[in-house]
Amino acid sequence: MQPRQNFADRLCDAVRARKTPLVVGLDPRASQLPEPLRTDSTHPAEIASAYQKFCCEIVDVVAPLVPAVKPQMAFFEEQGPAGIQALWNVVQHCRQRGLMVILDGKRGDIGSTAVAYARAYLERGPASSWAADALTVSPWLGWDSLQPFIEVSQENGAGIFVLVRTSNPGSRDFQSPVADGRAMFERVAELVQSAAAESAGASGYGNVCAVVGATWPEELKRLRDSMPNTIFLVPGFGAQGGTASDVAQAFDRHGMGAIVNSSRKIIFAWESESRRHLANSDWQLAVEQATLEAIEQLQEFTPARNLVDADKRPGESF
Amino acid sequence: MQPRQNFADRLCDAVRARKTPLVVGLDPRASQLPEPLRTDSTHPAEIASAYQKFCCEIVDVVAPLVPAVKPQMAFFEEQGPAGIQALWNVVQHCRQRGLMVILDGKRGDIGSTAVAYARAYLERGPASSWAADALTVSPWLGWDSLQPFIEVSQENGAGIFVLVRTSNPGSRDFQSPVADGRAMFERVAELVQSAAAESAGASGYGNVCAVVGATWPEELKRLRDSMPNTIFLVPGFGAQGGTASDVAQAFDRHGMGAIVNSSRKIIFAWESESRRHLANSDWQLAVEQATLEAIEQLQEFTPARNLVDADKRPGESF
Repeated sequence: MQPRQNFADRLCDAVRARKTPLVVGLDPRASQLPEPLRTDSTHPAEIASAYQKFCCEIVDVVAPLVPAVKPQMAFFEEQGPAGIQALWNVVQHCRQRGLMVILDGKRGDIGSTAVAYARAYLERGPASSWAADALTVSPWLGWDSLQPFIEVSQENGAGIFVLVRTSNPGSRDFQSPVADGRAMFERVAELVQSAAAESAGASGYGNVCAVVGATWPEELKRLRDSMPNTIFLVPGFGAQGGTASDVAQAFDRHGMGAIVNSSRKIIFAWESESRRHLANSDWQLAVEQATLEAIEQLQEFTPARNLVDADKRPGESF
Repeated sequence: MQPRQNFADRLCDAVRARKTPLVVGLDPRASQLPEPLRTDSTHPAEIASAYQKFCCEIVDVVAPLVPAVKPQMAFFEEQGPAGIQALWNVVQHCRQRGLMVILDGKRGDIGSTAVAYARAYLERGPASSWAADALTVSPWLGWDSLQPFIEVSQENGAGIFVLVRTSNPGSRDFQSPVADGRAMFERVAELVQSAAAESAGASGYGNVCAVVGATWPEELKRLRDSMPNTIFLVPGFGAQGGTASDVAQAFDRHGMGAIVNSSRKIIFAWESESRRHLANSDWQLAVEQATLEAIEQLQEFTPARNLVDADKRPGESF
């Protein structure tokens, strides 16, 4: 198999090509499927089949517009083995459409078990392997638990997103306490930045990346300053309450260095008052409109607008 | 569906019935399958099929001997959707054999995503649901991220094992730092104990349980004292370096309150020098011998030996 380019460089290229840092979260729910895909069945295999159709249609809509999607594994796992098979099919469809895939599984374990998780999702093995572009991982078990993920991702041109600071209120419990002058999330951040610097490619960014919620804009700004080689995945834009101006803190001065996830506001776009008329056979149009709207919001408030200019300045590094 | 008894009570009953706190970890690896099950194929579906046979045969051997098994999800996930299907089949086989199942998936997420993970593995839904007895979960995202797991487990007579203090050296990085006089793992422990007390059943133990590694015997002892309603799952016995006397600290004075996991030393028992002659068609015998040996080691060094006496004192609470 051909070696794959550095993950961070590929992601930066994709952000530049689509001129947006927007990532669409694939979080299907049985009760929120659009009319044409809704099923009364409670059988996991039927719900999983509906999820697959739903996500593949969304992928078809957003593939020309955004650099990546982020499937949330929990919703597929909820439908048992059939759900996982559906997710696998969705990931293959993304690959065919040229969309990068960040699997949101928040995995974490130690030693050979961590190696197994990393290989499971990031290794480019036989035809039936996932070979996702990146996976979200939890740091709680310690830095040695992340090493296998870093090694396997390096070998496979993949990336990992370490949960540094999450968007929920309870993230204060174990991420915020200050020991020896540093908050716990700052300890994680330091190690992530160091590994990002070591794996930095031509883009200046590394394959070890960070999840940082949009709901803590001041911390986001401080982390941006102290983690110059680290790409941020910023969840919480849209439905979770983070505004575009909060999110603006995540970018470097060239409008790079972060991707921003929006899920519900896009994939269930026909649920909004103004798009209720698209709830039936035109639900894909609602998804497209909401995607374009989110791209515009991000362009208006964040340095991402510079991406358009950047295209006109070839050769200038950013 | 019939309501299921409190998880902690069911587990305590199973420990008493088998007279041992030993749990067998199901961590299959393609390179370590016994001769009759070994495959040269690198195709995930074939490896997954071998894993299923391997684990079901182990289950047949250990079902009369131990209260529970702990399948490590990572090794099944490594074989893609086929691996998950194999694990699902193994879990059904455990149920038929009367073995409790603790799924080791170390899941964790927030809000409705956490609900999806909890339902995925713990809900007793349609015939195709996992309905495991318990799931391991990570606390990094905060206490609000664990609430959905607690609620779903309560509703389904299931349990969760929160990663309080893991056995790897790197667990010091984010579990040990001391903020406001308390180590991070102690903060987690306090919340776990409080939820365990709230969900305590007739056994005195609750459905919110803790993973505490055997490699930190002093901390194990302190946690035992401060968490009187919390069942401990102690990994690291055997291959990871924890001895039976280290593990002894995990039990209350009646020999209850903890289960002890051993994986590699049991499931790959024919790899040891003394059992190499069983590596072929008698590998199941090696598994049985190693299981009985581990049970004996635990009886010799830990309060679990009192379980035998306890049987003779019906009505005495312990």
